[in-house]
Amino acid sequence: MKNENLSVVVGAGLAGSAAARVLAESGIRVVVIEKLSHVAGHCHDMKNEEGITVHTYGPHIFHTNNREVWQFVNRFADFNYYQHRVLSYADGRMIPFPINRDTIAEVFGLTLSTNEVRTFLSEEVARSQFSNPPRNFRDAVVSQVGERLYELFFKNYTIKQWERDPELLSPEIARRIPVRENRDSRYFTDKYQGIPSEGYTRMIERMLDHPNIEVRLSTDYFDIVEELGASMTVYTGPLDRYFGYEYGELEYRSLELEFRTFDQEFYQPVATVNYPNDYDWTRITEFKHFLGEMSKRTTVCFEYPKSSGEPYYIVMSDDNLEKREKYMKNVAELEATGKVLFIGRLAEYKYYNMDQVIAESLSKTQQWLQAK
Amino acid sequence: MKNENLSVVVGAGLAGSAAARVLAESGIRVVVIEKLSHVAGHCHDMKNEEGITVHTYGPHIFHTNNREVWQFVNRFADFNYYQHRVLSYADGRMIPFPINRDTIAEVFGLTLSTNEVRTFLSEEVARSQFSNPPRNFRDAVVSQVGERLYELFFKNYTIKQWERDPELLSPEIARRIPVRENRDSRYFTDKYQGIPSEGYTRMIERMLDHPNIEVRLSTDYFDIVEELGASMTVYTGPLDRYFGYEYGELEYRSLELEFRTFDQEFYQPVATVNYPNDYDWTRITEFKHFLGEMSKRTTVCFEYPKSSGEPYYIVMSDDNLEKREKYMKNVAELEATGKVLFIGRLAEYKYYNMDQVIAESLSKTQQWLQAK
Repeated sequence: MKNENLSVVVGAGLAGSAAARVLAESGIRVVVIEKLSHVAGHCHDMKNEEGITVHTYGPHIFHTNNREVWQFVNRFADFNYYQHRVLSYADGRMIPFPINRDTIAEVFGLTLSTNEVRTFLSEEVARSQFSNPPRNFRDAVVSQVGERLYELFFKNYTIKQWERDPELLSPEIARRIPVRENRDSRYFTDKYQGIPSEGYTRMIERMLDHPNIEVRLSTDYFDIVEELGASMTVYTGPLDRYFGYEYGELEYRSLELEFRTFDQEFYQPVATVNYPNDYDWTRITEFKHFLGEMSKRTTVCFEYPKSSGEPYYIVMSDDNLEKREKYMKNVAELEATGKVLFIGRLAEYKYYNMDQVIAESLSKTQQWLQAK
Repeated sequence: MKNENLSVVVGAGLAGSAAARVLAESGIRVVVIEKLSHVAGHCHDMKNEEGITVHTYGPHIFHTNNREVWQFVNRFADFNYYQHRVLSYADGRMIPFPINRDTIAEVFGLTLSTNEVRTFLSEEVARSQFSNPPRNFRDAVVSQVGERLYELFFKNYTIKQWERDPELLSPEIARRIPVRENRDSRYFTDKYQGIPSEGYTRMIERMLDHPNIEVRLSTDYFDIVEELGASMTVYTGPLDRYFGYEYGELEYRSLELEFRTFDQEFYQPVATVNYPNDYDWTRITEFKHFLGEMSKRTTVCFEYPKSSGEPYYIVMSDDNLEKREKYMKNVAELEATGKVLFIGRLAEYKYYNMDQVIAESLSKTQQWLQAK
C-alpha cells in the first residue's frame, strides 16, 4: 500500500539531505535511509581529541558562485570565510599552485609582471614537443604550459593519482587546467567560499532537523525497500547497485587516508600541500587551518590514491562511460514516472563539487514538486 | 506665543549638536529634540562587552583640512591620531587601496617607481575601450585607470553598492576617483585625522553640555512643534518629511550591518577591508584598530547594502535630484524668513562628510546670528 504523502530519501549525504529538506518544507513526510552510522556522507567531519575538526573522508572546502546555494547552506551553518590555498612541493620548495604569475616567478627566479605571463608561457609551449591537437593528457597540459611546468607539477602527480601513464589518459581530463595570468594564488576563485564553523556534520544535522524528516541510520535501503511503501524515492546511492549491476560494475578511484597527529603547533604553512614528485602521497592536508583552531599539537592527513575501496572519483574510461550511458537510460525511464529521482555523485556517476550537488538536488526536487 | 530667546534644534546628530552649541554660546536658550533614544545620530558609538568601541551605524573616521572645524571638535574630545588605511581583497590578496604605486606594483607584479605610475596608467587607459567624454560610471573610471583596474576594484563593488549596472550610473559619481602617483596608502590625506578617544557619543554629549541647552530624547518634533513656540528652528531631519512629502519621497540607499564577535585577537590586518568581488558584503570593519583597544576577542561589522531602511546614502538619480530641487526652493523661501535653517545630510539631501556637516552648521548658525 502506497503512502501518498511519504517520500523516501536514500542516503543522508549532501544530495539526500538537501532533497529531504526541500520535500519536508513543502509538507511531505520524508524518511531518510542511511547505510552508514552517521549522516553527512563524504562531508562527514568531527572534532578529534586535539580539538581539531577533521574531515573523515579527506579535505572538503565549500566554494560556489551560485547565490541560491550559498543562501541555502547559510540557513544551516555559520561559515568561516576561509579561502583555500595550496602549495605544491616541487624542486624542494613550496610553490603557489595553481600556476599563476607568482608560481612562474618562484620556479624560474624571474621578476616578470603579469603582462609577461602569456608571453612566457607561449615561449615555454613553443620550445616543447607535443601533438596538436592533443592526443593525450600530456599533450593537453604541455600545449598550455610547456614541458617544464608539466614535468614539475603535472606528470608525476597524475601518475600517482591515476596509476597510469599520462600519455595513455584522455586529453579531456586536462581540457581546462587553471592557469592564471594574474597573481591570484587561491585554489578556487568562486565568489563565495568557506567552511561551516561548526563543521559539515552539524550543518547536515540542522538540514535534517525538521518535524517532517525521520532519519534511519545503519540501514540498507535494499533490505527494506518493500516495506516502506513510499510514493516517491530520492536515490543518492551507487547507480550500478540500484539496477543490480545489470550492465556491470562502475569503476571508482579510491583513497587511503592516513591521519597523523604531531607534537608540534603547525606541520605546514597552508592547509594543503601537494607532493607531485616526492613520496607516494599526493597531498597532505593540515586541518587546523580551515577553522583557525588553536592547539599545541596538529593533525594532518596523507592521501594515497588506490584503485579500490570507498568510491571517490569516477573513472572516465570508455568502458565506464558506456556503462553509465546504459544505466542512465534506465534512470531516464524511471524518472519519467515521477516516482524516483537519481541525485548526486554516486547516483549519477558524475564528478560533482559540493555546491553542484546541492544545486542539482534543489532543482530536481523543486521541479518534481511543481510537476506533482 | 513665540519665545524670542528660544531656539529649537531638531536632531541631536553632528549638525544639530554643533548648531545648538553655537546658539547656546551666543546666549540663546536651545531645546534639542531627538527622535531616537540617544544623541550623536549616525556617529553614535558605544563600548561593547569586549571593551571595544563599536560604531552603531558603521565606521566613522574623522578627517578634515578645515582648521576651524578641527579646533571646534577638539574642544569636546581628545583625539586618537588614527589615520585610516583600507585594503581591498582582490585576486585573493589584500591590496592597498585607493590605487597608488604600491597597488599597481602588487596587482601586476611590477617594480615600477612613482615616476612610472602616470605612464603605466596612460598605457592601461590606452589599451581600454570606453566612450570619451564618459557616458556612464564605467567610462569615467576606465578613462582614469583602464579596464583592468576598473574590473578588479570598481565594477563589482559598484554593483554591490548600488545594485545597478555601472554602465547605467552617472559618470558624476566617479568624477574624481582618488588615484595617487606616490606611495601614500592612506584612505584620506586630510591634514587632520583621528577618532575621539572616548568615542563620538561622548564628544557630542560634551558639545550639548551647556547651561543653555536642554535635550529631549525619544521625542518626535512633529508631535510637539505647535507647543514649542520657538522663534527659530534648526531642522536636521529628513527634507521630504518636513514638507509632508509634498513632492514625493526622496530615495536613500541603506545598509544592513552585521556585527560579529570572534574568539581571536584580530580578524584582519587593518580596520577596513573592502570586498569588491567576493561574497555579498561590501566591506568588513574591525573596530579595535581605531582606538588601539586591547582584547582577546574582536568585534567586526559586515556591511550589506540594501535599498530600504535607515537612510545612509542619497541616490543621485535624475528623479531624486529633481525632487530635491523642488524641496530646496521651499527651503530657500523659509530660510529667507530667518526662522528656519536646514542643515545636514538629511535636511539638505546631500552627501556630507562629518567635517563638512560641522563646517556647514557652524557657518549657517553664525551667519544667522549676525543677521539677527
